[in-house]
Amino acid sequence: MRGGVFRGMMPTMRIELINTGSELLIGQTQNTHHSWMAQQLGQYGYRLDHQSTIHDAGPAIREALETALSRSDLVMTTGGLGPTSDDRTRDDIAELLQKPLRSSQSVVDHIRDYFESRGRQMPERVTVQAMVPEGATVWMNAFGTAPGLLIALGANPFREGHPPAWIAMFPGPPRELHPMFLNQFIPWLVEHLPLPESFACRILRTSGLGESWVEERLQILLKDLTDQGLDIGYCARSGEVDIRFVASGSQANAFVDEACRRTYADLGDLIHSEGKRSLESALVEALRQKGMRLALAESCTGGFIAHQITNVPGASDVFQAGVVSYANQSKVHLLGVDAETINQHGAVSEKTAKAMVEGVLAETEADVALAVTGIAGPSGGTPDKPVGTVFLGLADHHETHVFRRLNPYDRETFKFVTAHQGMELLRRKVLGLSLEL
Amino acid sequence: MRGGVFRGMMPTMRIELINTGSELLIGQTQNTHHSWMAQQLGQYGYRLDHQSTIHDAGPAIREALETALSRSDLVMTTGGLGPTSDDRTRDDIAELLQKPLRSSQSVVDHIRDYFESRGRQMPERVTVQAMVPEGATVWMNAFGTAPGLLIALGANPFREGHPPAWIAMFPGPPRELHPMFLNQFIPWLVEHLPLPESFACRILRTSGLGESWVEERLQILLKDLTDQGLDIGYCARSGEVDIRFVASGSQANAFVDEACRRTYADLGDLIHSEGKRSLESALVEALRQKGMRLALAESCTGGFIAHQITNVPGASDVFQAGVVSYANQSKVHLLGVDAETINQHGAVSEKTAKAMVEGVLAETEADVALAVTGIAGPSGGTPDKPVGTVFLGLADHHETHVFRRLNPYDRETFKFVTAHQGMELLRRKVLGLSLEL
Repeated sequence: MRGGVFRGMMPTMRIELINTGSELLIGQTQNTHHSWMAQQLGQYGYRLDHQSTIHDAGPAIREALETALSRSDLVMTTGGLGPTSDDRTRDDIAELLQKPLRSSQSVVDHIRDYFESRGRQMPERVTVQAMVPEGATVWMNAFGTAPGLLIALGANPFREGHPPAWIAMFPGPPRELHPMFLNQFIPWLVEHLPLPESFACRILRTSGLGESWVEERLQILLKDLTDQGLDIGYCARSGEVDIRFVASGSQANAFVDEACRRTYADLGDLIHSEGKRSLESALVEALRQKGMRLALAESCTGGFIAHQITNVPGASDVFQAGVVSYANQSKVHLLGVDAETINQHGAVSEKTAKAMVEGVLAETEADVALAVTGIAGPSGGTPDKPVGTVFLGLADHHETHVFRRLNPYDRETFKFVTAHQGMELLRRKVLGLSLEL
Repeated sequence: MRGGVFRGMMPTMRIELINTGSELLIGQTQNTHHSWMAQQLGQYGYRLDHQSTIHDAGPAIREALETALSRSDLVMTTGGLGPTSDDRTRDDIAELLQKPLRSSQSVVDHIRDYFESRGRQMPERVTVQAMVPEGATVWMNAFGTAPGLLIALGANPFREGHPPAWIAMFPGPPRELHPMFLNQFIPWLVEHLPLPESFACRILRTSGLGESWVEERLQILLKDLTDQGLDIGYCARSGEVDIRFVASGSQANAFVDEACRRTYADLGDLIHSEGKRSLESALVEALRQKGMRLALAESCTGGFIAHQITNVPGASDVFQAGVVSYANQSKVHLLGVDAETINQHGAVSEKTAKAMVEGVLAETEADVALAVTGIAGPSGGTPDKPVGTVFLGLADHHETHVFRRLNPYDRETFKFVTAHQGMELLRRKVLGLSLEL
C-alpha cells in the first residue's frame, strides 16, 4: 500500500457511494465520479467507507441500496435520473423505500425553462424527471434537467436499531453532478451532518524528491505530533510527492499548522505549492510575479510541456512560444542549432541541448527558456546514452545550464517525469533559487 | 445512460471485482484497474457484473469476499499482496476460507532472484509474499515480487446449492497486474471457464460525426441483424464515436462481420480505425504509407496535437516539427506571418490560419502541415468570434484550405475536440479523401 490513509476521521458515520451505469461497470467509461466525490468529501473531513459500481438494470439498484443501508448512514448514488427507460434509480429507490412518486410542478417549470432558454421544444417524456419521492428534498439542476434528490429516513428499516439514514441521488453527467455536489450537497452535509469534532487538512506539494527520503525526514521531525494523533499521508506519482497533514479534535488546527511550519522550515523552497495548485500553475505564477516571458524547445517530450503550461488559464500572459523540434533538420532550421554540433555530439547531448535553448531564446522575445532532448525509447539507446537519458538546457540572457537525467520509464511516464523536472528547474531559475537539487 | 451495453453475454456466469486499498477508496489514487480489467474481459466476451472498492483494514476484505461469493462464480481482487502490515488480502481470504498458508519455495526463489538480479539485498520480511493458501495456483510476478493467487473452490460455502467458485488475487501496481492479467489469467480463464457459446466483437472508430446521426443511420441499416440478436453499442466522447458490434451464439461471427461489411459500405472512409487504434495512430500510419512528413503550427491547442502525435511509437519517422506560436510575435518571428495580417484580421482569423500553415510548411521540410488558431476561453470572445471559435489551416505545397469550427467547451475539451478535428482533416488530406465532412 502506498499513500496516506486518513485514519481517525468520522469514526461514527459511514458514507457509501453507489455508481450506477453499465457503461461504467464494463469499463467503457472510466468512473471518475468515485475519486472526485471522495476527494471533495475529504476536503471537508468526511471519509468514504465503501464504493460499488452496478448495472442499471434488473434488481441491482434495489439490492445494492438495501445492502448499503444495512451498514451505512449516508448512501450516495450517481446516474439513472434521466428520462430514458434505463434510468431506473429514482423509481427503484422509491419502490424499495415504499415512497410514492409525485410530480413536482417546480421541477416541471425548471425543465420547461431549461428547454425554452435554449429555444428547444420540451419533449413530453422528460417530465418524468419531475417525479419526486414523497418527502424528498429537491436540488434543482443548474446545468441540466434531472434534479438531485435527498431522502431522509427517520428510521432506517434495513439496519439494526433503526437509526436515521440519508440517501442522496445525483445525476450522472459530471458537468451536472460537480456543481450540484459542491453548491447544494456539501452545504447541506456540513450543516445537517457536521463532523463530531473539528478537522484540519493541509497538503504541501514537492517535485523531484524521493518519497522515502521525504517520509524518513518527516517521521523524525514530526514524531511528537504523530504520537498525539497527527496523520501524515504521502501521494507519490513519478517524482511528485504530495504531503498531507490531517488531524481531528480540538487541537486539529494547531497540530496541522505546526506540522506545516516545521516542514516549511525544513524543506523550504522545495515545496512548490499548497493544496490543489499544480507545478505548472506555480511556474506560471512565478513568471507573472517576476514579469518574465517563457519559451520552450522540446524534442523528446513532443509538446507535452507546452500542453501542460497552456492548460493553466492566463498562461498567454507569460508563455511566448514553443518549438517541438522532433526532426534534426528542425533543430537546425527553427532553432539555429549548428548541424555540425548534432553530427559531432549527437541530437541527444549536452552541446545540442545548450544550442537548442540558446536558439529558442534568440528566436523569441522570451526572458527565460527551457530545452529538452532525450531518448524516450523504446528503441534508440546506446551504452553511453541508454533509453531514458535526457539533457535539459536552461537559459536566460546571462547564462546557460545543462542538466543530465536518467528517466528509464515507458513513453508516457518518461514525458511526465521529464516535463516535471524541466518545469521545476524553470520555477527555481525564475525565483532565483538554487538549481542543485 | 449513454453507450453500448453488452447484453446477452455470459448469462450464466457472474464475475465480480473487489479493489482493495484506502488510497483508491478515498480518491487519492484514481481506480484505473476497474475499467482496464473490465475492458480486457470484454474483449474475450466476459462481462463484469459488480465492482466494489473497500478499505484494506479491519473486517472489510472478509465481509466483501463473503458477499461476493454469495452471488458470484468468479471473484477477482486487486491489491494487498505486498509485504507491509496493511497488505491483508491473502491472509484475510485464507482465513475466511479456512485454508492454511504455507511458504512456497519456488516463490521464495523467485523473490530472491528478483532482488539479486537488481543487485539488492532481499529484506527478510518480503518472504511473507511466498505464503500460499493450501491448494492455490501461483502466478509468478514477472515485474515484481508478490505472486498472483488462484483459489478454486469445488463447493462455494457461501452460496445456495454450493456450486464451484474461483477467487483470483492480483497485485495492485498496474505494471505488475497488467502483464499477469493478460499473460497468465486470461489464458487460464479462456481454457477453464469458456464462454457457453461463441462470441464475436468488433469496434469501428469514427471522428467528427454526431452520435445520434450514426445511431439513427445504423438502426435502419442493421435492423434485421439486431432483431436476430446483434448488439450495437456506441461510445461517444467529444466528437469521437466508436461503434461496437457484439453477438453470441453459432452465428456470432457471421452477424458481426455482416454488420461491419454494411457499415463500411455505408460510412466508408469516415471509419478511421478498427479496434484499439487511435486517430493519431491512424494519422501516423497514413503519413508513413504515403511517405509524407508533417509539421504543425499550434496556437490555441498549445502543443496538445504534437503531444498526441508524439505519443505514437515511431512518430519520429513522419513528424518533422511543431511550433506552439502562443504570442503574436512568435507567429511573426517563427512562422513568418505578416504582422499586418494579424493587425488587420486578428490572430484568430482565416487569413492568419492560412499564413501560419504556409509559414510552418516553408520553415520545415514537411510535405503537409496543419495550423490551428482559436479562442479557448474562458475570456477573449467577441460577438463575431465567440469563445470556442477556431480556424484550422491545412496545406501541402500545392494548395491551402482553411476551415472554421465552433467548439464552445471548457479549456480541456476544447483542446481535445480541436485536436481531433485537425488530425481527421490531416488524415483525409494525406489519404486524398474529401475534406467536406
